[in-house]
Amino acid sequence: MPHIALSIDYPAWVDGLVDWDRVYVTDEERMRLAIAVSRANVEHATGGPFGAAIVESETGRLVAVGMNSVVRLHNCTLHGEMMAFMMAQQRLRSFTLAGPGMPAHELVTSCEPCAMCLGAILWSGVRRVLCGAARGDATHLRFEEGPVFPESYAYLEDRGISIVHNVLREEARAVLELYRARSGPVYNG
Amino acid sequence: MPHIALSIDYPAWVDGLVDWDRVYVTDEERMRLAIAVSRANVEHATGGPFGAAIVESETGRLVAVGMNSVVRLHNCTLHGEMMAFMMAQQRLRSFTLAGPGMPAHELVTSCEPCAMCLGAILWSGVRRVLCGAARGDATHLRFEEGPVFPESYAYLEDRGISIVHNVLREEARAVLELYRARSGPVYNG
Repeated sequence: MPHIALSIDYPAWVDGLVDWDRVYVTDEERMRLAIAVSRANVEHATGGPFGAAIVESETGRLVAVGMNSVVRLHNCTLHGEMMAFMMAQQRLRSFTLAGPGMPAHELVTSCEPCAMCLGAILWSGVRRVLCGAARGDATHLRFEEGPVFPESYAYLEDRGISIVHNVLREEARAVLELYRARSGPVYNG
Repeated sequence: MPHIALSIDYPAWVDGLVDWDRVYVTDEERMRLAIAVSRANVEHATGGPFGAAIVESETGRLVAVGMNSVVRLHNCTLHGEMMAFMMAQQRLRSFTLAGPGMPAHELVTSCEPCAMCLGAILWSGVRRVLCGAARGDATHLRFEEGPVFPESYAYLEDRGISIVHNVLREEARAVLELYRARSGPVYNG
């Protein structure tokens, strides 16, 4: 048989960018982190203009970050949000962030999630989602977002996941514009 | 910083189960492979009752298989379909299965995809999808499927992805029943 296995890791710049010991108290502080990750991913040419983080809702403790790694790791599933979920669950050795005895966790994403990431939000165990740039800001760059409807968000809200839109949207959108200015690849399948 | 990285591999039984040199010509042959993977995953207690495969549409050449690995690898994103996409793209060193010069690929899945996997189908580059068991067969076991609507499938079809439902549905559903009989964990987030 062919031996197929894969490894998922962070780009080297994460070491220097992310302050793991800091607590991220406000929604804006949390979003600034996700946006900083998205910007570094563009500036270092390690992926698309999308960044994310998982934090404990109450304490603001940082659990993991994520950045689009589709091209770097030749893996279509590695959007920023997916990377953040995988890394957080790897760190906690748990397939859910809502396990027994765990504090509430939230996803912070520099852009509203695509259909895949929206589905993964349900399985991840996060209780809250902060979004920066809007779907239209991404599709303006010809990034597809897939079948996400108002009913999709309603489905999450019905299951107790609260969604906050447009947190520092202009700062988040500026990174999308930077990517466009650099003619970064648009890598839809 | 915390060092976070992860590895994704197959359970050891894949070696003995999968004939990588065989070609899978008909839809039924392809689905029997996905169902065999789902069944082995239950019998070896390595994950949920879901299996998948990626094959070249014309030749029937097998590129990768996938099996639910959520609990085994503590990673909520590792549904059978996602594992199949990741492994196929790793083997081909390409973030899309529709790259220049590539033959058409298709996804074979022992159960209709959840919202996350449906979104990933779009990004994967497959041109066709074969489904075994139906959404209702999974939700009957209390596996959630997330916000998938008729419009979601229409969105894929509009982008040239053809979907075939109910291929060997009864054989696929029998594995779900086997999982229930063994009281396998239902691991929604």
